[in-house]
Amino acid sequence: MTTSGFSTAGVIAVGSELLTPHRIDTNSLFVTARLNDLGIDVRIKMVVGDDRAELTETFRHVLPLVDLVVLTGGLGPTDDDVTRDAVAVALDLTLEEDEAIVERIRARFARRGLEMPDINRRQAQVPRGAVVLDNPNGTAPGLWLEHADRVVLLLPGPPRELQPMFEGVARDRIEPRVGTHRLYRRVLKVTGRTESHVEEAAQPVYSKWLANRPAITTTILAAPGQIELHLVTGGDNAGEAEARLDKAVEELVAVLRPHVYSVDGRSLEQVVGDLLRARGLRVATAESCTGGVVASRLTDVPGSSDYVDAGAVTYSNRSKVDILGVPEALIQEHGAVSEPVAIAMARGIRTRTAADVTVGITGIAGPGGGSDAKPVGTVAVAIIGPDGAVASHTWRLPGDRQQVKFQASQATLDLIRRTLTK
Amino acid sequence: MTTSGFSTAGVIAVGSELLTPHRIDTNSLFVTARLNDLGIDVRIKMVVGDDRAELTETFRHVLPLVDLVVLTGGLGPTDDDVTRDAVAVALDLTLEEDEAIVERIRARFARRGLEMPDINRRQAQVPRGAVVLDNPNGTAPGLWLEHADRVVLLLPGPPRELQPMFEGVARDRIEPRVGTHRLYRRVLKVTGRTESHVEEAAQPVYSKWLANRPAITTTILAAPGQIELHLVTGGDNAGEAEARLDKAVEELVAVLRPHVYSVDGRSLEQVVGDLLRARGLRVATAESCTGGVVASRLTDVPGSSDYVDAGAVTYSNRSKVDILGVPEALIQEHGAVSEPVAIAMARGIRTRTAADVTVGITGIAGPGGGSDAKPVGTVAVAIIGPDGAVASHTWRLPGDRQQVKFQASQATLDLIRRTLTK
Repeated sequence: MTTSGFSTAGVIAVGSELLTPHRIDTNSLFVTARLNDLGIDVRIKMVVGDDRAELTETFRHVLPLVDLVVLTGGLGPTDDDVTRDAVAVALDLTLEEDEAIVERIRARFARRGLEMPDINRRQAQVPRGAVVLDNPNGTAPGLWLEHADRVVLLLPGPPRELQPMFEGVARDRIEPRVGTHRLYRRVLKVTGRTESHVEEAAQPVYSKWLANRPAITTTILAAPGQIELHLVTGGDNAGEAEARLDKAVEELVAVLRPHVYSVDGRSLEQVVGDLLRARGLRVATAESCTGGVVASRLTDVPGSSDYVDAGAVTYSNRSKVDILGVPEALIQEHGAVSEPVAIAMARGIRTRTAADVTVGITGIAGPGGGSDAKPVGTVAVAIIGPDGAVASHTWRLPGDRQQVKFQASQATLDLIRRTLTK
Repeated sequence: MTTSGFSTAGVIAVGSELLTPHRIDTNSLFVTARLNDLGIDVRIKMVVGDDRAELTETFRHVLPLVDLVVLTGGLGPTDDDVTRDAVAVALDLTLEEDEAIVERIRARFARRGLEMPDINRRQAQVPRGAVVLDNPNGTAPGLWLEHADRVVLLLPGPPRELQPMFEGVARDRIEPRVGTHRLYRRVLKVTGRTESHVEEAAQPVYSKWLANRPAITTTILAAPGQIELHLVTGGDNAGEAEARLDKAVEELVAVLRPHVYSVDGRSLEQVVGDLLRARGLRVATAESCTGGVVASRLTDVPGSSDYVDAGAVTYSNRSKVDILGVPEALIQEHGAVSEPVAIAMARGIRTRTAADVTVGITGIAGPGGGSDAKPVGTVAVAIIGPDGAVASHTWRLPGDRQQVKFQASQATLDLIRRTLTK
């Protein structure tokens, strides 16, 4: 499978809990992202339980397929932790106790006033010839093992132990092997358009990049309320690759504008927050069907107290009247789910706060409450901008209750973004 | 690996997109849950790209390890869809075009006024001896293949095609093979206690069940703000197994009470909602650091408009004064993050709504804003119950900004639950 030098990897996650319906291996996503950056392709991923024989067999299967096998988990001190043993058996290596590791583990326990339990000696077992990778965040050291033209890497399972260890290994040991070829990527985030709309507009642009050498490949990923375009290109020269991507991003933005909200990884709530902060504006929200999701997303961003003033969740009609001063007659005339009521909600929160930008959101999240005229997924949103200008819009959003809530919050945040960038 | 009859399975997910950092195989969780119910253990999971040779090799590796191999994905009409081919090659079977499938696919296209593209004929290729599984939700049929004492099952990748097809196969073809032995499970959900606290209290109880025949195994799963205990027992008789679990749940609840909030799968927001509805009470929230998460979670439950009245997100001090009428002097005396202010917030929202139960939440979600006296993670929560009784509490919650927000919402919802069950 090897194409040139050190270019392919397989990941084996070890742990019976990862074979239940309740847990999933996410370490491999982190490892894959970092390996891809270095131009290494992940060809296979596996999950095996805490069974020495099965792991040995599986490891033997993967080893010839790839240049680098990464094993995560199974390095603890108990009988259930079989990764060290299985690799040693498969490669026919003896395990030897490393006194320096024993001392480090002993010291770790001592710092907490504890004596090292004898079983922790198992974590000091090292296959002959392996390099020991220090673990500042736990007792299990990692292991780096070169075997013929393959490399085997054993990492502890807990993400906070695995991630810094893998960063170090990627930098110090993997990067020097892969030469100068790297993958470079950009992510464009789009909202307010369906996947097919985005595809239709973007395809004529990105399809021609595939014929270029070096090519840029584009992947479209759809999620509720959001479409992402992932651009990837390979190259030996970072400056050239980045310039190529800059130009590609520019071309895509030109055909997708104004729906692109981020080209640098920021979330929509971060983009909105940065726009508010840059202009010294404060925001307040009046939410009905979204039940506080917009306020919650805005305040997910560290430092958002600089620009989030307040919010109201007026779920009942009475609270719309009592808290926001929405005229009862307006609700009777247009219904609670209507643009006039959304506007009145935005006005209500504006008079009750010091905010410069306010929004009102009212809709039917379902599953009940829909009608022919206003089916489930109908959401009316109003915004009052810093200059007092009022805008409103009604959407029909697909999906279940939580999807409608999320997409309504996405539409609202995007309306704030568009108002502030007009 | 087979212990008795038909008892072990392996799952292979096919698709290069599942080897990127952006996608994860979740079909296997669904398949695992259903297989576990039938007493079948998933021993290994794999993800392989759209590469015929690699898939053939990997399938050959898994086949001898288990009784049943489930392959998901790679059944589309393009050259990238290699699952049919790889399985046929590995088992040395010829592929034959099934005219009935061609007709079904043709009819499917015709219903949308379209002609079947010729490449879709690939989806009608069937390894000799395979049973064709109809796919009402897509063009790719599934395949059930018995080979010596093994079974190979090919399922389409899209969950809405895979799930109903697998339900049918599990019922009609797998269940008859597994005899009467089944797994039965219960989930206890606990909040307000750490994993070690739960373990310490529960371990003496559940450890003795392991020695019983039939045994009950207990797994403790920790998530932010919540601990789950999963109890599983096997048996030939549903009534006996359920009675055994009932008794076990009772014993665990006795030692963990009052921290157990659910023994029937309901979320904390559902439990709180059901308590409110049963007593005809309405709730309103006044949130600062949680930024609307409590209101949002309460309104995630369908029908929550029956008991959610309103909420305020008073992020700035000024909005606490303006919207909730918190006395400015109180904030100056105790600081915005304090139980007196939380109580004043709960009182404020109570006077402004028709709610019977109100809460006030104020804290420091971080990363900034902490001090020695009130570090990041300090959260004060107050509740005013239906009888007007006031209670308040301060927590120090670990983790990052979003974890603090979620755990504070969990603590608040649990405080409502405890108040309503006192």
